[in-house]
Amino acid sequence: MRANFNLRSLLAVVALLAATFFFTSGRAPAQNTTSKPAGTPNAQLNPQQLEDLVYANRILADQGIVDGFGHVSVREDNHPDRFIMSRSMAPALVTRKDLMEFDLNGDAIDPQGRGLFAERYIHAAIYRARPDVKAIVHSHSQPVIPFSVTGIGLRPIFHMSAFLGSGTPVFDEQSVAGDTNMLVNDNKLGDALAKVLGNHNVALMRGHGSVDAGTTIPEVVFFAYYTDVNARLQAQALALGTPTYLTPGEAEKSAKNLIGQYGRAWDLWKEKIGKID
Amino acid sequence: MRANFNLRSLLAVVALLAATFFFTSGRAPAQNTTSKPAGTPNAQLNPQQLEDLVYANRILADQGIVDGFGHVSVREDNHPDRFIMSRSMAPALVTRKDLMEFDLNGDAIDPQGRGLFAERYIHAAIYRARPDVKAIVHSHSQPVIPFSVTGIGLRPIFHMSAFLGSGTPVFDEQSVAGDTNMLVNDNKLGDALAKVLGNHNVALMRGHGSVDAGTTIPEVVFFAYYTDVNARLQAQALALGTPTYLTPGEAEKSAKNLIGQYGRAWDLWKEKIGKID
Amino acid sequence: MRANFNLRSLLAVVALLAATFFFTSGRAPAQNTTSKPAGTPNAQLNPQQLEDLVYANRILADQGIVDGFGHVSVREDNHPDRFIMSRSMAPALVTRKDLMEFDLNGDAIDPQGRGLFAERYIHAAIYRARPDVKAIVHSHSQPVIPFSVTGIGLRPIFHMSAFLGSGTPVFDEQSVAGDTNMLVNDNKLGDALAKVLGNHNVALMRGHGSVDAGTTIPEVVFFAYYTDVNARLQAQALALGTPTYLTPGEAEKSAKNLIGQYGRAWDLWKEKIGKID
Amino acid sequence: MRANFNLRSLLAVVALLAATFFFTSGRAPAQNTTSKPAGTPNAQLNPQQLEDLVYANRILADQGIVDGFGHVSVREDNHPDRFIMSRSMAPALVTRKDLMEFDLNGDAIDPQGRGLFAERYIHAAIYRARPDVKAIVHSHSQPVIPFSVTGIGLRPIFHMSAFLGSGTPVFDEQSVAGDTNMLVNDNKLGDALAKVLGNHNVALMRGHGSVDAGTTIPEVVFFAYYTDVNARLQAQALALGTPTYLTPGEAEKSAKNLIGQYGRAWDLWKEKIGKID
Repeated sequence: MRANFNLRSLLAVVALLAATFFFTSGRAPAQNTTSKPAGTPNAQLNPQQLEDLVYANRILADQGIVDGFGHVSVREDNHPDRFIMSRSMAPALVTRKDLMEFDLNGDAIDPQGRGLFAERYIHAAIYRARPDVKAIVHSHSQPVIPFSVTGIGLRPIFHMSAFLGSGTPVFDEQSVAGDTNMLVNDNKLGDALAKVLGNHNVALMRGHGSVDAGTTIPEVVFFAYYTDVNARLQAQALALGTPTYLTPGEAEKSAKNLIGQYGRAWDLWKEKIGKID
Repeated sequence: MRANFNLRSLLAVVALLAATFFFTSGRAPAQNTTSKPAGTPNAQLNPQQLEDLVYANRILADQGIVDGFGHVSVREDNHPDRFIMSRSMAPALVTRKDLMEFDLNGDAIDPQGRGLFAERYIHAAIYRARPDVKAIVHSHSQPVIPFSVTGIGLRPIFHMSAFLGSGTPVFDEQSVAGDTNMLVNDNKLGDALAKVLGNHNVALMRGHGSVDAGTTIPEVVFFAYYTDVNARLQAQALALGTPTYLTPGEAEKSAKNLIGQYGRAWDLWKEKIGKID
Repeated sequence: MRANFNLRSLLAVVALLAATFFFTSGRAPAQNTTSKPAGTPNAQLNPQQLEDLVYANRILADQGIVDGFGHVSVREDNHPDRFIMSRSMAPALVTRKDLMEFDLNGDAIDPQGRGLFAERYIHAAIYRARPDVKAIVHSHSQPVIPFSVTGIGLRPIFHMSAFLGSGTPVFDEQSVAGDTNMLVNDNKLGDALAKVLGNHNVALMRGHGSVDAGTTIPEVVFFAYYTDVNARLQAQALALGTPTYLTPGEAEKSAKNLIGQYGRAWDLWKEKIGKID
Repeated sequence: MRANFNLRSLLAVVALLAATFFFTSGRAPAQNTTSKPAGTPNAQLNPQQLEDLVYANRILADQGIVDGFGHVSVREDNHPDRFIMSRSMAPALVTRKDLMEFDLNGDAIDPQGRGLFAERYIHAAIYRARPDVKAIVHSHSQPVIPFSVTGIGLRPIFHMSAFLGSGTPVFDEQSVAGDTNMLVNDNKLGDALAKVLGNHNVALMRGHGSVDAGTTIPEVVFFAYYTDVNARLQAQALALGTPTYLTPGEAEKSAKNLIGQYGRAWDLWKEKIGKID
């Protein structure tokens, strides 16, 4: 029976290989052309960073942290004065070939006429100010917005958001530039935001959103996800009564412990996305 | 039994192979036949408008802005005294052949016995009053309803809903017609609603819903989506404390900037719908 | 080309027929047995009622009005002293062969040893008391529960829930039977509930759920859906301020108008379910 | 080109047919090979417990009770001083071969180098203290967190959560160990939690989550699901006014009745998961 099975398996695999060959040989030329687009990032980039960054884009959309807007970047492993982020587009649709390199002034290394995020200066400024930061998310995460406009500080309501314990300052563009279109779309505004962020992991942006800064892509996605969860739960707790937040000591110890846990969430979130282009 | 099964399987697969062959070799013509239904709008219509309008219907349903009820229309490019909207049906199910032309009195050009929305006068009246308006959404967007009945003004809580900054008046049918079935189902009521809307982008309708007016289909869908988001976030912020809204200057500058951003959301929303009939 | 296509189509269909034949002939005996199960309701039942009742079960689950619990019934067209509902099971899984007949005492006509809902007396009692009622939903619709325990009356916040305008009394089993398991599991409790319901469309059940009574299946599903929506929106409005509800006149006129609108929602909800067994 | 394509298609389909034939004719043995991975728990385990435990993991994720974190365990039928839970991973991804045995000190019987949940001591300690408990869920169920930090007791708002009626104590790790990382990651903390749980079905954990203890897997999953629902509905009721909870007598009678209802929910939840590995 078992021998029988192995023979059948072998024949099946041979047949499948043949099928694959015939099918792909009819479609291959088309795919070859689409897989060597002008926009492919250069070969020195760490392929793992590119893959992780595509996943980060898709995960943030899949988990509802970003909608059509928001962006995520990573500092280049082999080139710490550059960072990678997608061209201007919805994160849910980002593929490897949409990724671009930027220098720490927010200038694209090889723009090729592609549309750029007006707010790439958020990323550039924070990478300039914080050598420890390797990955950044900017989102309009919905539960966070009400905290950005009411003066109610976002504080860690449970151990999963302990990284908020060091504080969550609010950047108000009005206070540095008066009436604007609310965007951080130049280096001066970027520097002002980076100054408010200081050494914190998260800063809110009044009437706009928030920024999370981490040391790896999985970490910053974890920060963005649990910043969103914390905001929702803290609002609910405030409606019920007076919440007891994590003490500074609890937050510090919990945040340290979380570092070993990012992989569990990251693996799950990737699995929900499946294979990427 | 097993041998029996294998013989049957073999015959079945051979037959399927034949079916596959015949179908795939003749695929294109098949689509031609399905595309000439009686209900097709006339040939002078801009096909891009028709496609966009079908997408707008599907997107509004997919994003939860409409359920079985609500409608979206567009003023005809080549015929500014006419507009296009679907026959009376759930937006999620609309296809090109469900689209119909109406004149600015709300009369169907070629009804063909199809059911018409009782509230097409919302659209007719606003197109009459506002030559700048090219597209209109009417919805019962759920987070907006509580604002329509409590006298709490909808105000821009973040830059994505800056288009609310010019004001969001509330139309109360009771004040113009006493007890009614709450519908705007004739031109007199339509005119009263259009008067309340004035030059604003959005008007609420007490105990009913809201109407968004824009200059393109992607813009008006963007308005409808972020009107809904703003209502939810503003309610949450009001539960937390006293929100700081965008200043008039911030709203004006942000709204102007948004115009260049509609495409990013529109592309994402279309992608989630996929191909349409 | 077109002739060509028709020939190909014909061949394809012949081939598909053959494939279908071979496949089903290998499986047919199994399917035949499952399609003439002991539980099939008798032949005098209106097949449209059976189909609608299966859809009602699935729709209520799909729209989140019921989870594993809750039930829907219909009074028999050809036998007004009987009603049809499923055996005891989750509504999402109901198929035609799970439907059973009951008399107006809540006794199964032909139980065949199947499990019965302990609360079929809700249905029996209301059908006894209300000859105008042809279809009933009992659910634990979540937004409704808080209204059942706080003395805050559910009132129509917009025209889509105008059917609430005639009042939404609350049945408290404690007041008629002291401490119980909260179920309406005999005719005496059923009568007490029916008495509280009176001539209303909806009654709440303290610490339990609600019951909707209508004249057709699409109507009662519409009632159940918008009872749920109204509860959520009314709670949000109460958090914002003091809502203006529909006036009695508005509610009456709106409710009358809604009757013509059920089909639009019903068609959409059925489409989301697809084909049923 | 077209002829070319048709030839390729034909060859491909023939090959696929062959593959289908070989695979389907040998399907059963193939599954045997994939089911003897190194991680398979030993043969004395009750296969029904293993299957139920995999379903419990998937259901808790599918119903939103757990995200990447949280865990569920079962006491071994044939070995009451051991329990089974997965290696350290997201519940949504658990398969039979990820299940491991632990003794009542929380030590893995045969670790094989796999990562273990730091909080397996929650389970070990409760199994030690409560011989009646056969299954345990630990989650960060979101609506429950606000109750864990505000001193507002979780109480049964409807009959489906009557099992809360015996009380829902809150474990505060701060009170027994000062500033920690909030985890119950040793037997001393486990004992402190088990002591707070006492004979209740549910205990909350301040700034962390909750634990549900039951006599079967379907029961404890039911507890976890309706603990979550109750928290959300109780918060909504508290926003509306002063809720009337189930009386102790109602809770006791309702909880007793629920025991016969778990199967209805369990069947539905399993059906939504489909087949498992």
